[in-house]
Amino acid sequence: MTRRPSPEALAEGVRTGRRAAIGQAISLVESRRPSHRALADALLEALPPPEEPAFRLGISGPPGVGKSTFIEAFGWARLEEGHRVAVLAVDPSSVRTGGSILADKTRMARLSMDERAFVRPSPSGGSLGGVSRRTREAMQVVEAAGFDVVIIETVGVGQSETAVAQMVDSFLLLMLAGAGDDVQGIKRGILEWADLLAITKSDGDNQTRAGNAANDLRSALSIFLPENAPWTPPVRTCSAMNGDGLGQLWEDLGQHRDTMTKLGLFEDRRRQQRVQWFREELEAQMREDLRRRTDLESVEQQVEAGVLAPGVAARRVLELDVGTTS
Amino acid sequence: MTRRPSPEALAEGVRTGRRAAIGQAISLVESRRPSHRALADALLEALPPPEEPAFRLGISGPPGVGKSTFIEAFGWARLEEGHRVAVLAVDPSSVRTGGSILADKTRMARLSMDERAFVRPSPSGGSLGGVSRRTREAMQVVEAAGFDVVIIETVGVGQSETAVAQMVDSFLLLMLAGAGDDVQGIKRGILEWADLLAITKSDGDNQTRAGNAANDLRSALSIFLPENAPWTPPVRTCSAMNGDGLGQLWEDLGQHRDTMTKLGLFEDRRRQQRVQWFREELEAQMREDLRRRTDLESVEQQVEAGVLAPGVAARRVLELDVGTTS
Repeated sequence: MTRRPSPEALAEGVRTGRRAAIGQAISLVESRRPSHRALADALLEALPPPEEPAFRLGISGPPGVGKSTFIEAFGWARLEEGHRVAVLAVDPSSVRTGGSILADKTRMARLSMDERAFVRPSPSGGSLGGVSRRTREAMQVVEAAGFDVVIIETVGVGQSETAVAQMVDSFLLLMLAGAGDDVQGIKRGILEWADLLAITKSDGDNQTRAGNAANDLRSALSIFLPENAPWTPPVRTCSAMNGDGLGQLWEDLGQHRDTMTKLGLFEDRRRQQRVQWFREELEAQMREDLRRRTDLESVEQQVEAGVLAPGVAARRVLELDVGTTS
Repeated sequence: MTRRPSPEALAEGVRTGRRAAIGQAISLVESRRPSHRALADALLEALPPPEEPAFRLGISGPPGVGKSTFIEAFGWARLEEGHRVAVLAVDPSSVRTGGSILADKTRMARLSMDERAFVRPSPSGGSLGGVSRRTREAMQVVEAAGFDVVIIETVGVGQSETAVAQMVDSFLLLMLAGAGDDVQGIKRGILEWADLLAITKSDGDNQTRAGNAANDLRSALSIFLPENAPWTPPVRTCSAMNGDGLGQLWEDLGQHRDTMTKLGLFEDRRRQQRVQWFREELEAQMREDLRRRTDLESVEQQVEAGVLAPGVAARRVLELDVGTTS
């Protein structure tokens, strides 16, 4: 990485909303070089939380559902209302190349080029844990820079939806009507995380199918929803092409936030997320540390093959490791 | 705890199926006294895995669904077929008292008193993580003792279903028909773990309602199921009172195991479970270790309150801790 200003100077640049500083700050927290870690920590400590909590919105959905087009249209409407919108991505499958940065910029061309928005492509490949830790810190950076609507997008690979759902206030699941009136591409275990659902591409010939799919989904959901649930996830249809339904979704999101806030669940959720984040950090760092000192992979392979009992293996690894300390 | 035989002698007693030895062995792995841990490890290492993998069945459902009655009737039918049945419970809310042991024995009176079965009440209270670690080790003990059908029951408190689903080959969710034809008491995020579903108490006047609830559930599930899923969870009705449907469920379970085995998914799942178990053990032990040396609770409270950033807090805790080693 190139020469960069001190963490304090960088933090000042972020606070005053300088785009170059924001970009550099995110690169710093995303950096995997151990020497950058202390600088990143100093930066994060120098960044104040926003006075009003930002709107943290997670968006997911299967490939082809039109996430970028949706975010472009939805985000643009927020800019028009005076919000400032940041878009971050969680994609553990991506390897950052010149090409993919370009692709990210291209697919949200209007947002990317607007001063009131900030679009950041996915951090370079790595484990989901690594990527989501860096995304959470990038979120701190953009919030400190005054972006009050932060959209975290996930491509839906592996467990990335769950990871994203656990770092936002509201999680929106986008879906497509299938060839019948069914809903396509729902991954097992994702629905439970959705605070809002929308069938996309509800325009032209597709409108009826989208409406039917939404109805089916709504009645199916009603069976699964716990009684006395504080919030019933609305199921909507929308079109990023003609803008239909986008306003309704933004209203729903506001309603979700209000309801959760009134019941004390908004702050509850954030509190839980902070604790969880802390625990994940702790675990990730302990594992990294352990990996440097023991042959964790080989032990894990033996456990996987059934040669070594899991509990015994864990104690053995830690005895080897901890032996010198305790 | 009272004087007990050496781990080797205990292992020998377990292998030859002596009930007293099995009980003592489970008490040893459940013990929270640090000095017992090495003995428990030696015991576990001396226990051979069964030649044929046992049938690990998780059973959950809301209070009132009739889990004990179901397990009593279902387990009894297996004994009649020549199987040997062990029943273990995961219940992080329980505090073991004379009363609750008695309750456990009473509620499955026939199974408890039969030589071919082994019913073990929940380990004494503690964190879910602790309870599930001990349950997994108890599972090793009963399998080494020749029980080829191992039922892990959960009361459905907190995340205990997920924990149980992650230690079994097949997960059966029991449900009740509601006042309408709806299904009652499904907790969010549980359905995704179910390999089989059954509406209980389908007898007498309740039979029609149970059948309707099953139909509704089946059609709702079909919307959520991924295309090309290797296994479609069947939705059945049953009655532990008159035995209706219990045979079908056992057939379904056999079918599930066959299908998973043929696709290589049975062994895949067990492999993943071993790795996950190892990682949980590792994390739990590292946390315990950390807790002894740092004030983890106080740091966690500061993180929860938002006073300390999660990432920074994690690194600070580990620096304090690791400082002397590295």
